[in-house]
Amino acid sequence: MTYRPLDAASLVEAREKRRVIDEEYYGLRYQRLRDVIHGVPRGTALFDGRTVYGYPQIGRVLRLDSGLAEQFEAPVWAEEKVDGYNVRIFRLDGELIGLSRGGFICPFTCDRAGDFIDPALFDDHPDLVLCGEMAGPGNPYMEGYPPYVEEDVKLFIFDMMRLDRPGFLPQAERMALAERYRLPQPEIFGRFELDQVAPLEEILLTINDDGREGIVLKEDSPRAKRAKYVTSNTSVSDIRLTAHEMLDLPPEYFTNRILRLVLFMDEEGLTRDAELHRQLGEAFLGGLFDSVRQYKEEGRVYHRYRCRFHSRENAERLITRLTATAKRSQVRIVQQRLEHDGGHWLLEFDKEFLRIGGAFGHLMGGGLVFD
Amino acid sequence: MTYRPLDAASLVEAREKRRVIDEEYYGLRYQRLRDVIHGVPRGTALFDGRTVYGYPQIGRVLRLDSGLAEQFEAPVWAEEKVDGYNVRIFRLDGELIGLSRGGFICPFTCDRAGDFIDPALFDDHPDLVLCGEMAGPGNPYMEGYPPYVEEDVKLFIFDMMRLDRPGFLPQAERMALAERYRLPQPEIFGRFELDQVAPLEEILLTINDDGREGIVLKEDSPRAKRAKYVTSNTSVSDIRLTAHEMLDLPPEYFTNRILRLVLFMDEEGLTRDAELHRQLGEAFLGGLFDSVRQYKEEGRVYHRYRCRFHSRENAERLITRLTATAKRSQVRIVQQRLEHDGGHWLLEFDKEFLRIGGAFGHLMGGGLVFD
Repeated sequence: MTYRPLDAASLVEAREKRRVIDEEYYGLRYQRLRDVIHGVPRGTALFDGRTVYGYPQIGRVLRLDSGLAEQFEAPVWAEEKVDGYNVRIFRLDGELIGLSRGGFICPFTCDRAGDFIDPALFDDHPDLVLCGEMAGPGNPYMEGYPPYVEEDVKLFIFDMMRLDRPGFLPQAERMALAERYRLPQPEIFGRFELDQVAPLEEILLTINDDGREGIVLKEDSPRAKRAKYVTSNTSVSDIRLTAHEMLDLPPEYFTNRILRLVLFMDEEGLTRDAELHRQLGEAFLGGLFDSVRQYKEEGRVYHRYRCRFHSRENAERLITRLTATAKRSQVRIVQQRLEHDGGHWLLEFDKEFLRIGGAFGHLMGGGLVFD
Repeated sequence: MTYRPLDAASLVEAREKRRVIDEEYYGLRYQRLRDVIHGVPRGTALFDGRTVYGYPQIGRVLRLDSGLAEQFEAPVWAEEKVDGYNVRIFRLDGELIGLSRGGFICPFTCDRAGDFIDPALFDDHPDLVLCGEMAGPGNPYMEGYPPYVEEDVKLFIFDMMRLDRPGFLPQAERMALAERYRLPQPEIFGRFELDQVAPLEEILLTINDDGREGIVLKEDSPRAKRAKYVTSNTSVSDIRLTAHEMLDLPPEYFTNRILRLVLFMDEEGLTRDAELHRQLGEAFLGGLFDSVRQYKEEGRVYHRYRCRFHSRENAERLITRLTATAKRSQVRIVQQRLEHDGGHWLLEFDKEFLRIGGAFGHLMGGGLVFD
């Protein structure tokens, strides 16, 4: 993991290869990298001469015992991995802008980021870019969320960058800024030597019991290499949450999680028992039976999202944006409600899974499959 | 489903497109269709002017209630679907030859077919081709088998053809021949009108309880269209048997079975309960934990096969053939034992899953994955 600057020659090359896309959205014109270019991450965005570097892809280890020594060369910080969507937040012309992993401006993040960030932070550090996870049942993109975010959303800042500079701020600087401006962060479990596997495994057992997702390891070195590792209970709950979309997700989504679960339990010395078996079986069947019932009762399979906005305009922007990209992913967005509710605009919309509806139509209509 | 003859022009075309392969095996030279050609099934084999037509692919329905009316135009015969491997058996120069689905000569079938077939059948009907399933724990290809074949293998004849003629013998003719020569057959449940869904669903409930695989429906008409339908318990037991190979199988192998299970239960009005959940969870985890244990103890993941042969030469032929095709499918065949045992040659060999060993090596060694 090295952080390379986006130089002029690379940008010209990227443009020629159509890897740079011109965007106009949210009253802003900018350019977005839709692929990695010479080590510069996908999702990097260029606003009138200011560059917001992308958040790099983080690899996963399925074992800590061997993974620590195999992946790292210096001690690592271990932090909680939060189950939400990745955002980069910065200030442009006085306004907070949230970018998705792919470099799209997210109107929900733009609308809500200010709830969690002391404005003095950007007054004092106008070139800061906050990297974080927006998580909770009120997010507009994902069905999963951490157990301790019981309603709406929360923001968790786990990295910082500066405009125009690739790479992250050192851990000490990031932690000092977070403390000074009382920024919400994921839990930081500490700094570990590479032979300190046992205390990390202890932490994982605890967060597994808590239903939290896992950890991110960050090498305390200039290259700041990262790796993630998740618990077995997360794998079960991922399956439970998404089984109703089984016909819309790549099938390895499910088999990968079973593999992670087994390797986690083997490493942690956990023994499988009837209760775990029951939970896993129910995770698979509960969601799929639900979607069969939805299809039989309503002729469609969907998930209903509920999100709160400060501004009606941002809610409408979100619906427009989701609708514009829906067809490509074979979903349909159906707005159910947008009304003022307790100081917020409450948006409710359904994400209908057209591929699932089509498959159920074929199969329940007695269609043949050759498999 | 129409049965088309293989005419000279098609054969020339197939040869030009390299869809006909010359084979020399078992002391025989022949040609094998490795793809469907103008409706002539893959696996069709040409022996010195005699053509053994391939067994066509059979589509699957996931619902009987709608599937009967949707797929068929005339009453159907319902027969048990046996969990084994598909063979076609015929006599050539006085010797029984068994062909696999793909048109390969199977030395195990050649060796053992005579145990189950009255020689008078081919004396009286030299141009007959028996289509059947070889099933049992002693088969050399598959880990699954029916609960009522407790040891070794059994043969079940479910269709008949004639040399040089596409298509199947009518059901009445096949049943008469089977009875006359006391051929083993799968259970034939009867002939059903297309509105007789309820009695078929009753039969499915019973065979689900018995742990039998499912049924094949055969239209009682010249086109003899077929469709298959399997029980929910079969889906669970498929998963149980193959979870140890999860990293070697296409992931949709597993998701397809969960889908079949849910649609079967929904159709049959079965309710999911803790016991089913436990069984499904255990099906996934038991096998995968076993393969992790194998890998940690022996550094490899494998399944051991035990098969009985009359002839030592056929056992050696099988090993040679399996070894020759192993590399392509990333397995390794390791012969463990070949010795005379109670009137048979007992062959034991391991099928090692190299892809799984490689993946475990990477993951347990702390390797990164990007998913």
